[in-house]
Amino acid sequence: MNPDFLVQQLRWRYATKKFDPARRIPDATWKALEESLVLSPSSFGLQPWKFVVVESPEIRSKLQPISWNQSQVVDASHFVVFAGRLRLDSTDIDALIAKTSELRGVPSEKLEGYRSMMLGFRQKLEESGGLDAWSARQVYLAIGGLLTSAALLGIDACPLEGIDPAGYNEILGLRGYSALCAVALGYRSLEDATANLPKVRYPVSQVIQRI
Amino acid sequence: MNPDFLVQQLRWRYATKKFDPARRIPDATWKALEESLVLSPSSFGLQPWKFVVVESPEIRSKLQPISWNQSQVVDASHFVVFAGRLRLDSTDIDALIAKTSELRGVPSEKLEGYRSMMLGFRQKLEESGGLDAWSARQVYLAIGGLLTSAALLGIDACPLEGIDPAGYNEILGLRGYSALCAVALGYRSLEDATANLPKVRYPVSQVIQRI
Repeated sequence: MNPDFLVQQLRWRYATKKFDPARRIPDATWKALEESLVLSPSSFGLQPWKFVVVESPEIRSKLQPISWNQSQVVDASHFVVFAGRLRLDSTDIDALIAKTSELRGVPSEKLEGYRSMMLGFRQKLEESGGLDAWSARQVYLAIGGLLTSAALLGIDACPLEGIDPAGYNEILGLRGYSALCAVALGYRSLEDATANLPKVRYPVSQVIQRI
Repeated sequence: MNPDFLVQQLRWRYATKKFDPARRIPDATWKALEESLVLSPSSFGLQPWKFVVVESPEIRSKLQPISWNQSQVVDASHFVVFAGRLRLDSTDIDALIAKTSELRGVPSEKLEGYRSMMLGFRQKLEESGGLDAWSARQVYLAIGGLLTSAALLGIDACPLEGIDPAGYNEILGLRGYSALCAVALGYRSLEDATANLPKVRYPVSQVIQRI
């Protein structure tokens, strides 16, 4: 990919305020975006997340009032809720070891060092009270990746942080995971005047320090 | 961009364990990656971050021992430290209002509603003790975006969470911001056997729920 194309698409993207409710993301494109979520990197590869694709218009309508009433929840072609693992425990670590053993054809016993390291890391996070915050950060890696991937595929997106996690968890039936953020994806409406506003970013000299 | 290309590149990427110290990212590619960081989305557009590009080999050598001694710190073509804003306050909000006013040609007074909303949001975060955690999540959006952008440009990368933030802050002279994570970028060494291991991801049916 040409570096100029990357920058062009990242300038093109914006937090879409109004989606065209009539336009739907083609299946092949959506499938690639889902695959990009599955492939998201995470610390130790633990993947402490669930991505909930809300297809039901009824459920989207229920989520809208607990999302600052934003129209994107119901108007966008696709709507994904990002949930982070709560109180990650040794079963999560064992599951990753089992999956690694399966996919790489390595006996679990040979992964004991990796397992111990993850258990030690988890223990430290728990002691510092940072376990769920750590999961949340991993989820934000996935969100950041999705926003970039979407922009490159010419898909508009809007991340929504202003959601009521407890309400979302109840409506979506989440257990052991908690909603953190949602992303609406689709195509901007021609009526969305915010699409044409200049992007507000601090200059590179302020944001990037060289040492 | 073709959706298949996205998936192909995300499968190609991996957390590079060993970089080729002789290969350097071309300037135009690196410039695009820096620009992608500047363009990263953030909640309200507050950009609560600094990205420190560590060019000095001496400083990289100092960072290595407080980075689990990982070779990527010194071997990679480029090394970026991601720092999050500490105790974001009204001056950050005023700075964003001033920049918005400047770039969009709107008098600050007309942005008073936006300003109040951000101040209210900040106040709630402070009361819940989640102010710095919120900044950290925004930083992880930027990291997630960078990892995807790099993969698409054919650049290898490795995020390093195992760093000592206090040590990093001191060496880099960070004030008002704290190091959260670093990313090494460059080209994989042909000696890195981990490059050929199958990727370990849970299946889409486990990670993505449809409702």
